[in-house]
Amino acid sequence: MDERIKRQMAFALEIDKAKNVFRQTHLSLNGRNENDAEHSWHMAIMAYLLREYANEEIDIVKVMLMCLIHDIVEIDAGDTYAYDAEGLKTQKAREDAAKERIFSILPKEQKAEFTALFDEFDAYETAESKFVHAIDNLQPLILNDSNNGGDWQEHDVTVEQVYKRQGKTKLGSVKLFEITDEIIQDNVRKGNLKE
Amino acid sequence: MDERIKRQMAFALEIDKAKNVFRQTHLSLNGRNENDAEHSWHMAIMAYLLREYANEEIDIVKVMLMCLIHDIVEIDAGDTYAYDAEGLKTQKAREDAAKERIFSILPKEQKAEFTALFDEFDAYETAESKFVHAIDNLQPLILNDSNNGGDWQEHDVTVEQVYKRQGKTKLGSVKLFEITDEIIQDNVRKGNLKE
Repeated sequence: MDERIKRQMAFALEIDKAKNVFRQTHLSLNGRNENDAEHSWHMAIMAYLLREYANEEIDIVKVMLMCLIHDIVEIDAGDTYAYDAEGLKTQKAREDAAKERIFSILPKEQKAEFTALFDEFDAYETAESKFVHAIDNLQPLILNDSNNGGDWQEHDVTVEQVYKRQGKTKLGSVKLFEITDEIIQDNVRKGNLKE
Repeated sequence: MDERIKRQMAFALEIDKAKNVFRQTHLSLNGRNENDAEHSWHMAIMAYLLREYANEEIDIVKVMLMCLIHDIVEIDAGDTYAYDAEGLKTQKAREDAAKERIFSILPKEQKAEFTALFDEFDAYETAESKFVHAIDNLQPLILNDSNNGGDWQEHDVTVEQVYKRQGKTKLGSVKLFEITDEIIQDNVRKGNLKE
């Protein structure tokens, strides 16, 4: 095995660990907690399926790959819940160290590509990043909605907190924010989410 | 919510169930059984990372999407182990029924697109299908290799059976078959796989 493919295979084995990083979101039908690999798979399909609703023109290969790799740093850094104020303070430092270690396993130019893609996601500036963030918000929302808002209740999340996070969806997709808003209002009406 | 997006959202929720379809493969570090969603996520990243080794020119969007959706039919049809001769006899009928039910949730033209993509994967004829099958073989091989061949031992799989399946990898990638061959021979030498 030459050095290049040896590095690629080592990276392929390393990322298997993302299947053991569990999120706060629960699977539909009141299932178990979801892991990062499943979440990313779900996002990549949703991004392709819903790409017509992006506000701006997007490069779909970049979008799908961004969905697939955006949480790999959590192998070292762990999952930071969207409503965990303390965890959010140290998130960037933890994820930067993880990014350096994990992407360094790759051949040099693939390390540079994956690092740049993660940084682009994180910066929330390009059309692709904004659309991937919209999907990253919508995917757990539909699971939580299907479970009558159980994840919000478990963490005492308020409707204001949900709008603060989900409101940014409109930067990537006005249409997907309309859907988000319908789902949130429906959960307020049902008493699943408190004012 | 208009009819189109309602169908897209219903499909997005339906495929969540793929996270509960478990395969015979175990995660690295002697982990639990792997599920279809994780397996497909892993394949899509590997396909992108290793695309330089495809025998023919490939459309990478099609390849990644094929990786992501190729096992969705197993939500109804269940996983059929690669070395389960009885299960393989009824696999096609079970998967055809599942394909019709699950993809019918989508808007008409997206149903047609996903159905065609699944059929293309299944037919093993195009450059994309052959490369995705190569990745579908390689991904569990690296996990099983990392676990000293535990999955083969559990099912009394012989080296001839492994070559019969993995040999087809060369249709999609001569280079990835070389790597496959190295891994198999290494496991024969270690006694993890019997002649």
